[in-house]
Amino acid sequence: MIAAPAYTELCRAYLRLHRYNHLAAIVGWDRNAMMPPRGIEARASAEAEMNALIHRSRTDSRLTDWLRMAEDERLDDIQRANLREIRRDWRNANALPESLIEAKTLAGAKCEHAWRSQRPANDWRGFLENFRVVVRLAREEAQLLSGDTGLTRYDALMDRFEPGMRSAEIDRIFDDVKQWLPDLIARAEAKQRVEPVIAPVAPFPVATQRELSLAFMKLLGFDFEAGRLDESTHPFTGGVPEDVRLTTRYREDDFAQSLMGTIHETGHARYEQKLPREWLGQPIGQARSYGIHESQSLSFEMQLARSRGLIGLLAPMLAARFGDQPAFRADNLYRLFTRVKRGFIRVEAAEVTYPAHIILRYDVERALIEGEIEADDIPALWDEKMQSLLGLDTRGNFRDGCMQDVHWTEGVFGYFPSYTLGAMYAAQWFASMRRAAPDLDARIAAGDFAPVFDWLNANIWSQASRWETAELAQRASGETLNAAHLRAHLEERYLGAS
Amino acid sequence: MIAAPAYTELCRAYLRLHRYNHLAAIVGWDRNAMMPPRGIEARASAEAEMNALIHRSRTDSRLTDWLRMAEDERLDDIQRANLREIRRDWRNANALPESLIEAKTLAGAKCEHAWRSQRPANDWRGFLENFRVVVRLAREEAQLLSGDTGLTRYDALMDRFEPGMRSAEIDRIFDDVKQWLPDLIARAEAKQRVEPVIAPVAPFPVATQRELSLAFMKLLGFDFEAGRLDESTHPFTGGVPEDVRLTTRYREDDFAQSLMGTIHETGHARYEQKLPREWLGQPIGQARSYGIHESQSLSFEMQLARSRGLIGLLAPMLAARFGDQPAFRADNLYRLFTRVKRGFIRVEAAEVTYPAHIILRYDVERALIEGEIEADDIPALWDEKMQSLLGLDTRGNFRDGCMQDVHWTEGVFGYFPSYTLGAMYAAQWFASMRRAAPDLDARIAAGDFAPVFDWLNANIWSQASRWETAELAQRASGETLNAAHLRAHLEERYLGAS
Repeated sequence: MIAAPAYTELCRAYLRLHRYNHLAAIVGWDRNAMMPPRGIEARASAEAEMNALIHRSRTDSRLTDWLRMAEDERLDDIQRANLREIRRDWRNANALPESLIEAKTLAGAKCEHAWRSQRPANDWRGFLENFRVVVRLAREEAQLLSGDTGLTRYDALMDRFEPGMRSAEIDRIFDDVKQWLPDLIARAEAKQRVEPVIAPVAPFPVATQRELSLAFMKLLGFDFEAGRLDESTHPFTGGVPEDVRLTTRYREDDFAQSLMGTIHETGHARYEQKLPREWLGQPIGQARSYGIHESQSLSFEMQLARSRGLIGLLAPMLAARFGDQPAFRADNLYRLFTRVKRGFIRVEAAEVTYPAHIILRYDVERALIEGEIEADDIPALWDEKMQSLLGLDTRGNFRDGCMQDVHWTEGVFGYFPSYTLGAMYAAQWFASMRRAAPDLDARIAAGDFAPVFDWLNANIWSQASRWETAELAQRASGETLNAAHLRAHLEERYLGAS
Repeated sequence: MIAAPAYTELCRAYLRLHRYNHLAAIVGWDRNAMMPPRGIEARASAEAEMNALIHRSRTDSRLTDWLRMAEDERLDDIQRANLREIRRDWRNANALPESLIEAKTLAGAKCEHAWRSQRPANDWRGFLENFRVVVRLAREEAQLLSGDTGLTRYDALMDRFEPGMRSAEIDRIFDDVKQWLPDLIARAEAKQRVEPVIAPVAPFPVATQRELSLAFMKLLGFDFEAGRLDESTHPFTGGVPEDVRLTTRYREDDFAQSLMGTIHETGHARYEQKLPREWLGQPIGQARSYGIHESQSLSFEMQLARSRGLIGLLAPMLAARFGDQPAFRADNLYRLFTRVKRGFIRVEAAEVTYPAHIILRYDVERALIEGEIEADDIPALWDEKMQSLLGLDTRGNFRDGCMQDVHWTEGVFGYFPSYTLGAMYAAQWFASMRRAAPDLDARIAAGDFAPVFDWLNANIWSQASRWETAELAQRASGETLNAAHLRAHLEERYLGAS
């Protein structure tokens, strides 16, 4: 064993950081899932103290020297990959002066807080006042992040969520989608017009929904010895890989929301639970990217849970719990879960229209960050894209238009593409699985999910951040990101025999 | 305003410590109330990292200078009291070298872990091997803590839990109790022999017990906007003053355990919830001592909840929830909740025998720490005291004798007196309340607890650590600790008209 003292120091520092992040993750989960309302002020101070500590640790000046020295140390491939991820984290933490981080946090909090009442009031003018500051600071941030990397400003922002992904590639992919998606949506709608759906009859008692969620998590391999399910206003997957905390929300008039939400989060959760134990505590042990993470939740929610096979298993589970009713017949459930309906709101969009919402946002935010448009120009561009992609008129409707998402209000730019990259990767993974196991759908229908989980575990979960994203995809599926798989999947599901 | 730069620095450091402690409190609660089993290893590492950080903060060398300089700064009375509490915390943190803390932690963990199987096996010899190390380290600790204070070794340990309390005073008080308690127990038993009790008929569904617990917490003024009730194996009050987390446990065959447990913890919880907001974040804003804390839980559980007035309110609540049965008549409930039964086990002991269990432990642990006996001598001394105080023979029964508590196994000495000091203070507070409000019991019976809560708030909760304990008691009740009130309370309840 060749001594690598600087690398060893880096690992020690990042292990400590990992433990601080553990505490931050648990109290963050608690804030969202457990904390009573009057706890918020003290909690905010305590979390800010922890964030400051984490920031100090990531910007400790000794890291700079260790990083430089570790370059010349003899490291094996795994250590070298970990060093690459350490450097990435270090660069993200050190590119920005503390004054900018503080200004961003303040401006984002102010804009988001005002947005909560401005959005229902459709008050775009009022929103703009705060939002212009948010945009200015995001551009500053992008400029600094791009500084020594040679990336464009938008790419520098996106790189934090999708390391290695560039807008040139996104443009190429999304331009292709723009060619076929509107037509696919129109044809799917036409086809479904003659396929009636029976609506399920409420109520669906919350306690029963919860039991159903737990039963499904079990079916999907969630390890309850290493995680739990709770409730929160906005469902999320939190906690730490050794103890994954996921949440869902229940509505008595709609069992599908909690069920599909739980299945989505279970996809995230299983990725976390199966990250390799021997790497935990180091950056190499973390999930690869936001897009890859989303590919897991969508593998579960879209590929697996909306497959005919799984819906065949779901039908009797629903009847046993809520009483038999015509809506619970498998063919009806399939129609219900694959219904296409254009709408203004991204978070309510179905699988087939979701990419349109993302492409629209990507086009707007990229132009905004690169300085091609100003904040004032957003509504016009939004209206134009909404018309061309979904044929919807959003003029004057800021509330259900460009003011609908929380992301921009908080200054989060470069994140939106991850949603659709996730959908594309998920389709790509399942195409690869079907090549390896041609009987995949029959096995799913028989309740045997092993081919799915074994493939995901071998190719994604166990790989953590061992490879950069393009190489991960190449090794997993024989090719880098290829949107043709999403197209084939959507055509099969929405235009095929029903 | 006279500038006090060193004092200001101290406050800043302690505010940061307060926030770290907030995070530690929430993840500690989570570990006991929420965490799934496989989370333990990662959590232990994360909590150890936090404890190390807290220890580094408390032993930061700059504190020494600031403490010295602050002495000469012009401070008001409140600041001076806060400085006194800061110094106390600082002394406790800095008296021990890190090597001793680590050795203590390791030895305590080892002894406690082995004890879990040695206790059921009645294996005193095996236990002694680990326990001798624990005792040696506790004596070392006591020696170091007593170093610059002039306290005896035992007093130095006890001072961490009961600042200002000395064994000379405990001796005086407990010697008095030894004179009258055995006789009081015997007379109470004789009296109760002719007072039959009807046992409640189980089952008591857990969901109903939980609802009853919540209803009682509400009745007792718990603020659910600033805290919550959950379950854990060992009930406790955790969290932070702004967000108090309490737990209880449910047994389907016994509603009293969860109910009385909840009421006990609610006493702790209300103290925390009502600590003055303007002092939170500084040591002056913390609860005064473990004994004073226990005086709150016992004020709720023993003084209030076992009063005839409150039991009169409880009776219809039980009948409404579990169905009417003869056991739920108020007079029967009163007999049930004040039943005297000698037994080996402290945690199962009733109000009237509990002090005997504590006095016994105090006598043993004081002698042990002062070097008057060795660990090997404990069983003989235990048997002798058990015989004289409770007339029970524990010879050879280590399991239900000197091996029953977790405290010593972990090296916690000097804590036991707090339980009985709490009972004494609680009786003293209620005697004082009755002098101020002669109709107190009638008002409790009518469901009006304001005289109780107002008194506790004015005299205890709002005072936090403003005064040293003796002065707190003097100001609250016109006298320092006086065990005569506990005696009068017990005689009235157990020997009075029934």
